[in-house]
Amino acid sequence: MDETERMGRAICARVDELARITEDPPRLTRVFLSPEMRRAADLVLAWMREAGMAAHMDAIGNVVGRYEGTKPGLPALVLGSHLDTVRDAGKYDGMLGVVTAIACVGRLAHEDVRLPFAVEVIGFADEEGVRFGATMLGSRAVAGTFDRALLKLKDRAGTSLADAMREFGLDAARIGEAAKPRPGILAYAELHIEQGPVLEAKDLPVGTVTSINGAARFEVEVAGEAGHAGTVPMDRRHDALACAAECVLAVEARCASEPGLVGTVGRIEASPGAINVIPGAARFTIDLRAPDDEQRGRAAADLEARFAEIAQRRATRVEMRRVHGLQAAPCAPWLMEQVDRAIAAEGIEPFRLPSGAGHDGMAMIALADICMIFVRCVRGISHNPAEAISMRDAGTGFHVLLRFIKGFAPKPA
Amino acid sequence: MDETERMGRAICARVDELARITEDPPRLTRVFLSPEMRRAADLVLAWMREAGMAAHMDAIGNVVGRYEGTKPGLPALVLGSHLDTVRDAGKYDGMLGVVTAIACVGRLAHEDVRLPFAVEVIGFADEEGVRFGATMLGSRAVAGTFDRALLKLKDRAGTSLADAMREFGLDAARIGEAAKPRPGILAYAELHIEQGPVLEAKDLPVGTVTSINGAARFEVEVAGEAGHAGTVPMDRRHDALACAAECVLAVEARCASEPGLVGTVGRIEASPGAINVIPGAARFTIDLRAPDDEQRGRAAADLEARFAEIAQRRATRVEMRRVHGLQAAPCAPWLMEQVDRAIAAEGIEPFRLPSGAGHDGMAMIALADICMIFVRCVRGISHNPAEAISMRDAGTGFHVLLRFIKGFAPKPA
Repeated sequence: MDETERMGRAICARVDELARITEDPPRLTRVFLSPEMRRAADLVLAWMREAGMAAHMDAIGNVVGRYEGTKPGLPALVLGSHLDTVRDAGKYDGMLGVVTAIACVGRLAHEDVRLPFAVEVIGFADEEGVRFGATMLGSRAVAGTFDRALLKLKDRAGTSLADAMREFGLDAARIGEAAKPRPGILAYAELHIEQGPVLEAKDLPVGTVTSINGAARFEVEVAGEAGHAGTVPMDRRHDALACAAECVLAVEARCASEPGLVGTVGRIEASPGAINVIPGAARFTIDLRAPDDEQRGRAAADLEARFAEIAQRRATRVEMRRVHGLQAAPCAPWLMEQVDRAIAAEGIEPFRLPSGAGHDGMAMIALADICMIFVRCVRGISHNPAEAISMRDAGTGFHVLLRFIKGFAPKPA
Repeated sequence: MDETERMGRAICARVDELARITEDPPRLTRVFLSPEMRRAADLVLAWMREAGMAAHMDAIGNVVGRYEGTKPGLPALVLGSHLDTVRDAGKYDGMLGVVTAIACVGRLAHEDVRLPFAVEVIGFADEEGVRFGATMLGSRAVAGTFDRALLKLKDRAGTSLADAMREFGLDAARIGEAAKPRPGILAYAELHIEQGPVLEAKDLPVGTVTSINGAARFEVEVAGEAGHAGTVPMDRRHDALACAAECVLAVEARCASEPGLVGTVGRIEASPGAINVIPGAARFTIDLRAPDDEQRGRAAADLEARFAEIAQRRATRVEMRRVHGLQAAPCAPWLMEQVDRAIAAEGIEPFRLPSGAGHDGMAMIALADICMIFVRCVRGISHNPAEAISMRDAGTGFHVLLRFIKGFAPKPA
């Protein structure tokens, strides 16, 4: 076994250890401000300290470690990814980036290397947005763009974000303290699994990300008329779920009509939700993404118009409400060049690709220039327990990130 | 205010009193073996005793009152309806029949009338099947057709029917004691709101039911492939919810293609159920009804074939499992004639119509000949808080049922 394979194994062992911290074993689910998040944070804090970093949990629950440069207090290159998961998640999404970054700092410490800048590693507490429906709460707090109106968001149990923070032992009034001062940050770099099929098709272990696609989320409410499932003839019904089903297929058809555009209905619910009652109401969510913000905006407008047509024909009402939006986030050319160079120095052909998934960089771009390194994943499967990478690719990711850190040069003034 | 109006008001006041016993005020929801069922049963037992009946709760939780005839122990005319509700229910469905029957017996007692047969009134504990997905558990127990395999059914919280009975204070091993001996029963008669628009369209307060439509319920499971909502192109998806949506519309289209047939999808769920994950699985229910059992069977077979086509095109899997079925239950001609006569004697034109909804008579037909009296309801709306009847129609229902009881003659041998 060579060193790349060995490092890959060590990194994947830690990913496995994190994956065992879940609210519903054997499935992996770890959401913002849960007891499982506390246990994962404690584990990562210990790893950070073992790697020679000063580490703490910040005001929103992110885990932050700092490895000083040639002298204390220098501006920092920030590395990071997230520690929360979707429901029934894969184990590399987010965690691979945090574990690899810590391993890189550990290697610097082991070699007693001090750089002319500090290196910080952040394990973000919320990127997926599973619990409260709004994503990147952790990185938005760090970037200083956290909107306090979000504190009123409620989870499915009816607990507000502010209350959940209190129960976790954090104080919503102090979220501002998680924000980093802009002059202290040189750049934000994130290593992440691709979560798509492109690198595999190109037979490449890693790639340089060009930009993160923009995304918008919507909640759609359908109002029809409830009634007895046995006595209301089909032609007199205003079935809210049948209307919602037609809207779900409209999302699918509209998004399939253009390359790049994707749309997903991930949640749906019919009320009152009894077998023998015609649904009087239904609600569902839409996640809409495109590399181009204008393309995405056109699709959303078309869907809203299409829903209105469907509702009119069925004499129901459909309301589509945008609950979350993130513009596409381009990676900085000067950083992409440095990532390309690190990849080439490992003997791999540099290759650039966009990110179809959202990442913390979309929030961090408000604070600093960003870049990302993608690691190949098996069959492009993610947000799924079948998510997988090879040990060797994990090791290659480590070497590319380490080389990027060691060779990092701040943006020329 | 005349006597009909006065009786209607008294009956509706009791219906209102029962409607205040709910698990989620101001909505009305009262399911099998809940604390609210206990409170409703206690109230009805008190009313039965006040009306001169010996009353008890039977082995499955039905409330049973008996008013003896000219001598104790005579065979009985059984009257009844149910005390459970759907979620966010109307207040007349079931309860009107129980309250009206008790009022009729109260009038007999008040007039000191003893008939050449006993009169029993049953408030069935479960007709809607909301909690365990199988209907008429109360009347099946009385009819002696309760299938003990049902004891393993679980509610949404994972509690089995057997355990729920234990928690309620009943013993599943003794369900057989709720069964009535066939020789002791002369007939089963039920007064119920129509829950459909026919009597209103005919401008008639009551009608004679000809038969109760057959019904079947299915659970459908869709298996697709979960994936990341941002990175899997539309043409590579196997979205279980999009597949389910197409099936929902297939149910609607197939049932709209024939008069009499109705089909409803009342519940739907996508898994894992996160906004940003392509659903890997989905499940939904179908409630299918028709006046003719063969017509219903053809529709079910067609749907199963249609689902298979949809699944094949999408490379998903769809499994449709029948969880419940009840054959159409014809009312007995000799009883329909007596109902017609009671209606005519009240100065109303006798009118016959089928029942689109299921009723306890579908189970009770295993024990005795059945008949039903329908009372007009506003706009045919039921299983909905907007369910309504007029006080006068409630009073008319009372007089028709009382006249039917007083004039009742057992089937000629």
